[in-house]
Amino acid sequence: MTIINAYAANQANGKLEPFSYDAGVLGAHDVEIDVQYCGICHSDLSMLDNEWGFTQYPFVGGHEITGTVAAVGSHVKHLQVGQWVGLGWHASYCNTCHECMSGDQNLCTTAQGTIVGRHGGFADKVRANAASVVVLPEGVDAASAGPLFCGGITVFNPMVQFDVKPTDSVAVIGIGGLGHMAVQFLHAWGCKVTAFTSSEAKTKEALELGADDTINSRDPAALSAAAGRFDYIISTVNVKLDWNAYVGTLKPRGRLHFVGATLEPLDLNVFPLLMGQRSVSGSPVGSPSTIAKMLDFAKQHQIKPMVEMFDFKDINAAIDRVRSGQARYRVVLKR
Amino acid sequence: MTIINAYAANQANGKLEPFSYDAGVLGAHDVEIDVQYCGICHSDLSMLDNEWGFTQYPFVGGHEITGTVAAVGSHVKHLQVGQWVGLGWHASYCNTCHECMSGDQNLCTTAQGTIVGRHGGFADKVRANAASVVVLPEGVDAASAGPLFCGGITVFNPMVQFDVKPTDSVAVIGIGGLGHMAVQFLHAWGCKVTAFTSSEAKTKEALELGADDTINSRDPAALSAAAGRFDYIISTVNVKLDWNAYVGTLKPRGRLHFVGATLEPLDLNVFPLLMGQRSVSGSPVGSPSTIAKMLDFAKQHQIKPMVEMFDFKDINAAIDRVRSGQARYRVVLKR
Repeated sequence: MTIINAYAANQANGKLEPFSYDAGVLGAHDVEIDVQYCGICHSDLSMLDNEWGFTQYPFVGGHEITGTVAAVGSHVKHLQVGQWVGLGWHASYCNTCHECMSGDQNLCTTAQGTIVGRHGGFADKVRANAASVVVLPEGVDAASAGPLFCGGITVFNPMVQFDVKPTDSVAVIGIGGLGHMAVQFLHAWGCKVTAFTSSEAKTKEALELGADDTINSRDPAALSAAAGRFDYIISTVNVKLDWNAYVGTLKPRGRLHFVGATLEPLDLNVFPLLMGQRSVSGSPVGSPSTIAKMLDFAKQHQIKPMVEMFDFKDINAAIDRVRSGQARYRVVLKR
Repeated sequence: MTIINAYAANQANGKLEPFSYDAGVLGAHDVEIDVQYCGICHSDLSMLDNEWGFTQYPFVGGHEITGTVAAVGSHVKHLQVGQWVGLGWHASYCNTCHECMSGDQNLCTTAQGTIVGRHGGFADKVRANAASVVVLPEGVDAASAGPLFCGGITVFNPMVQFDVKPTDSVAVIGIGGLGHMAVQFLHAWGCKVTAFTSSEAKTKEALELGADDTINSRDPAALSAAAGRFDYIISTVNVKLDWNAYVGTLKPRGRLHFVGATLEPLDLNVFPLLMGQRSVSGSPVGSPSTIAKMLDFAKQHQIKPMVEMFDFKDINAAIDRVRSGQARYRVVLKR
């Protein structure tokens, strides 16, 4: 038996309080991780608040985890105790469906979320199936790497999936937790990067992060002036924008890609898609092999999430900080 | 000077009447075609009725043309008088923009439509820039091939552009002028093909054309039962359907592709796109090289549009037949 000391909410919107549970015997294909750092993602808040209707309480959030391997199950041969690893949104895959067998584990329809019906990384330890645990390469800063495992892979993965090219002209809608990583990745990818933001402060920061220029996302005239400019646009926001205006800024063959879960339907006009052979798409996080690829790329280009650090004991203050929307740009808890 | 004897409408929704015009001196890069056959496409009616607001009268429609080369301009070396050729939606490209230089002439933003500001194929002769004229391979039936140059390439092109694979499970929404060709192409491509139709007669015909099965597009339960089945769906209809239900029939990584110009916005939910890495897209006709590829493929697999033939002198009856929506499946005029 392993007692895990966590922070849990007992009800929707509740404060997090110390909570211990017995994790039982470690499964043969599972890994136990000593949590050293854990980012706080907006979806931790959505789950905490039961926005999606399937949160189970007591609820232990946390799915942007870096830490060291504490123990491995008897069938796990590729990970060693003490090794630095990370764990993101998914804590297990079926490993047998078509998507898993094709290397698209993140599209496995029976994959388990690290914080969905399981206890996550707001704790001293967390467990996951070994297939979903990715080794942290030496040279990647463990303290700031947690957010790469959810926010980072969410914006990196479509660059791989949809073959974004270094010669592409690209844009990022929303400079926040996801967007500030997207700008860095796309800049390092070789692309000409435009940041869409309505914040003056973020305009400056986006340029420092590697954007070549910025466009005020609340200025319709500026959007019109950008007609036909982009091969690829990634939207990281979860509010409704004038999507047809953004489609208008795409080149022929361009793609508008959604990683932000806007709840309002997209109300897209067909003609601009049809006349310019344009695509609209979405994607969720990424597979373990794409996460590994991202980590190597982040190391190569010294890409790091910008984070604000809080001690685990200050977790409620940290969560309030994420709720404020003021964090630059991700909040990470440390032991 | 060349006098061309055509049929023209003098006003929106007008009857077609004999109309002659002087085509002037043949341009150095142009081709004059003796029109032998000309299909009637729904966009001929849209233009005739000035639905899109830019029709010029007298209006000569017709952009699904097969015929023989009557004359070539002084700089045209690759086409010979007497040779069988076809001409579709585009009669010229700029040949210098990025899209043209990349082989995507159909995405050229200054390409000219055969019936937009020009006189089309409802005539004894038609002219076009040589780059938009494609040789009809021996063994392709000229009488029925006209519709391949607009309706056919419209459904064939996305198979090439988006790399539809013979192992894909695919579906066609709408069994009509475009859909009946899509079923044939996708069947010959090696795909498992499902036809979505609400017509009992077309259910039978779709199976004869090569569909493996059919789904009643007006039966929500049937759509639900098809959840997660298709890699690729092409919609050829121009009415609003429950698009989110169709997205629900896509596999992870699946694509819903529009070639029918529905005027109502698509009201797509983001979550199903995001969770399954799904795409929605559109495309217009195809480039000359893709048209040539299609003709070779049609020849190889003996794919022919099903057509109803009318004499040119009965053009008004032929147009009424297209308007009726009862034609099986395309109407073609012959000399």
